[in-house]
Amino acid sequence: MNIKPLGDRVVIKRLEAEEKTKSGIVLPGSAKEQPQMAEVMAVGPGGMIDGKEVKMELKVGDKVIFSKYAGTEIKYDGVEYTILKQSDILAIVE
Amino acid sequence: MNIKPLGDRVVIKRLEAEEKTKSGIVLPGSAKEQPQMAEVMAVGPGGMIDGKEVKMELKVGDKVIFSKYAGTEIKYDGVEYTILKQSDILAIVE
Amino acid sequence: MNIKPLGDRVVIKRLEAEEKTKSGIVLPGSAKEQPQMAEVMAVGPGGMIDGKEVKMELKVGDKVIFSKYAGTEIKYDGVEYTILKQSDILAIVE
Amino acid sequence: MNIKPLGDRVVIKRLEAEEKTKSGIVLPGSAKEQPQMAEVMAVGPGGMIDGKEVKMELKVGDKVIFSKYAGTEIKYDGVEYTILKQSDILAIVE
Amino acid sequence: MNIKPLGDRVVIKRLEAEEKTKSGIVLPGSAKEQPQMAEVMAVGPGGMIDGKEVKMELKVGDKVIFSKYAGTEIKYDGVEYTILKQSDILAIVE
Amino acid sequence: MNIKPLGDRVVIKRLEAEEKTKSGIVLPGSAKEQPQMAEVMAVGPGGMIDGKEVKMELKVGDKVIFSKYAGTEIKYDGVEYTILKQSDILAIVE
Amino acid sequence: MNIKPLGDRVVIKRLEAEEKTKSGIVLPGSAKEQPQMAEVMAVGPGGMIDGKEVKMELKVGDKVIFSKYAGTEIKYDGVEYTILKQSDILAIVE
Repeated sequence: MNIKPLGDRVVIKRLEAEEKTKSGIVLPGSAKEQPQMAEVMAVGPGGMIDGKEVKMELKVGDKVIFSKYAGTEIKYDGVEYTILKQSDILAIVE
Repeated sequence: MNIKPLGDRVVIKRLEAEEKTKSGIVLPGSAKEQPQMAEVMAVGPGGMIDGKEVKMELKVGDKVIFSKYAGTEIKYDGVEYTILKQSDILAIVE
Repeated sequence: MNIKPLGDRVVIKRLEAEEKTKSGIVLPGSAKEQPQMAEVMAVGPGGMIDGKEVKMELKVGDKVIFSKYAGTEIKYDGVEYTILKQSDILAIVE
Repeated sequence: MNIKPLGDRVVIKRLEAEEKTKSGIVLPGSAKEQPQMAEVMAVGPGGMIDGKEVKMELKVGDKVIFSKYAGTEIKYDGVEYTILKQSDILAIVE
Repeated sequence: MNIKPLGDRVVIKRLEAEEKTKSGIVLPGSAKEQPQMAEVMAVGPGGMIDGKEVKMELKVGDKVIFSKYAGTEIKYDGVEYTILKQSDILAIVE
Repeated sequence: MNIKPLGDRVVIKRLEAEEKTKSGIVLPGSAKEQPQMAEVMAVGPGGMIDGKEVKMELKVGDKVIFSKYAGTEIKYDGVEYTILKQSDILAIVE
Repeated sequence: MNIKPLGDRVVIKRLEAEEKTKSGIVLPGSAKEQPQMAEVMAVGPGGMIDGKEVKMELKVGDKVIFSKYAGTEIKYDGVEYTILKQSDILAIVE
């Protein structure tokens, strides 16, 4: 992928419903903050972010849960991605 | 459990009403911030969070009281969980 | 008591009106932030809280004044308690 | 006085109008933030407050000017007091 | 003057219109934040303020420009003053 | 270019739609925060910004994705530019 | 000029439209935050500002772009100036 996130940001791609069913995560209809499952496509270098050292814990290919309202959505070559900070990723699903 | 919370987050599962009655906690109907009782299912690694060292005090199996409006709810294999930061856990019930 | 508050939190139990009269504190009807008198039931361990060292100054049995709107109310074995941070305790009454 | 303020808080008692006239302070009717004159009744120990060292500069008996909307009002043995942080005291009148 | 400002506060007295004309400052009628010209009457000791060392740069007698909405107005012996933090003083007029 | 951004700011020029199509980025119509693609025209020196060391990672000529609502728009010699902080740049497109 | 800005503030004077045309900057009519071009008339000493070392990068005579809504407007000897912090200056035009 030729999108290189800056700082402590990552680029993720949402997993389709069928993929989510396979991995077992289903989103509740009534959640006030809708979680999402996605795959990590690119990881920023981390480093000093706002005066604080941030070490990137994520790697390309990780399946993650993130908050729907975090980050910025872009479309690249017809595919939608989200760029968000690593701290907006809640968990890794293994 | 194969959900690995990041940073200072934990995954908890709410205790059912009958379990709460057994352990003696009842939620007041009029509380402005409704507390909840839950069991810790997974604990993040802690470490440097927003430039501050966070040591995880919780462990899997702890019964805890947390604020209802904290965290993000997910459903996994048909069971509902909440992912939230350790600092949103108010107390351990022993 | 088997509720163990985390971090810099304490568990307090409000003193009844007759107890408050005995100790001499009366709440003004028109206060914008209504103070409360309570007894400390459990004290968290303190330590590094949000990157800052917090030493617990309170001990079980202390009579304290706190702000009504601080903390979270719970009911345990039929008794109401409030869990709040030590910094929301205004004063000790000796 | 048996009210011991915690941290960087002080307990003050407002001076009556006649006392204020004697010391020369009159409150303007149109001030957006109404100042008040009071006497310091008790002073907390200071120390590390929210990660910062606070040294108490006030002592019991000081006549001070403070902001009306700061702090919490209590009534003790029939007398009204205000508990507020030292940093909400604007000046000492000598 | 027997008002001693605490911390990084100063006491100032607004200059009358004729004084302002003499020193050449006129306030624009349409400014969203109306500046004011005043004379410094008392200066606090500075020191550690909210965990940061503040050195007082102002001295009694300085003519200063300040923001109208900063600080607290008081009346003392029939004269109006404003108590505000040194950082709310914009400039010295020499 | 003779506009020299201060501190951790950069000057960018938005890429036209045809340029965006060539590089493959299309903005989704429904994004709550509309991303933008631009070219970096000038880069500030970085250094101590608000008490924190900021190292500039961007260089003139970088193609970047940024948030539409960040920064200040100016027109210079008939061309529109945006001045914004490096931290408002989300990613580099290579 | 006998206005001496305090701390990290500068005094600037807006350039007239004809001056702006000569230097090539035109303000877009629809900008949500209208930029402005001005000349620096006086520069504060910098130093420790809110606990952080600020070094002044601007000098008298610099042509700068700043945000319209930053700072405080004053009129002195019939001329309008703006007093604002160096960090509200976006760029130098050379």
